[in-house]
Amino acid sequence: MTEKLSEETRQTVLKPLFDTGWQMTEGRDAIHKTFEFANFVEAFGWMTQAAIWAEKWDHHPEWDNVYKTVNVTLTTHDVDGLSTLDAKLARKMDGIAKSMKD
Amino acid sequence: MTEKLSEETRQTVLKPLFDTGWQMTEGRDAIHKTFEFANFVEAFGWMTQAAIWAEKWDHHPEWDNVYKTVNVTLTTHDVDGLSTLDAKLARKMDGIAKSMKD
Repeated sequence: MTEKLSEETRQTVLKPLFDTGWQMTEGRDAIHKTFEFANFVEAFGWMTQAAIWAEKWDHHPEWDNVYKTVNVTLTTHDVDGLSTLDAKLARKMDGIAKSMKD
Repeated sequence: MTEKLSEETRQTVLKPLFDTGWQMTEGRDAIHKTFEFANFVEAFGWMTQAAIWAEKWDHHPEWDNVYKTVNVTLTTHDVDGLSTLDAKLARKMDGIAKSMKD
């Protein structure tokens, strides 16, 4: 069962994500980040990898794409706020983006 | 060279798209449509097919996805408005969605 991040664990889990560019979303218990790629193929390729993980974990992003830019918002509707699943998917998204630059 | 849709061709080209659910976007010379699928796999699968055509034609959508819903906006930045490329991609998107239901 997914649980909402407690006040105690919140900073520990979210701080490393804030360091990579994730931000709290105004007016929602959610995090968001803008990913920029070299072109559409890289942007959509990244989305495709992220989509497979999202489906595997049954935890899906809100995201939009315009050419080489992807804006992602993560939250957990079942708990009406951030859960460890959001942090897990955020870390995976960062990891995929990093792997594409290596 | 892509050209902006002329007043004469505009109705001929756009009318069939309005009939399938495309709408003019307020405040922009653009069209938009919301596609609903059975689940995330179908929604992202549809996006993936559309993405390959978009890249092939070097004409990319503005789109967002939340689980099984995809909102698409099409316009041609090079001509600051709608061109035949938008109509072509819109028809392709409709066609892919239709093929998935067959």
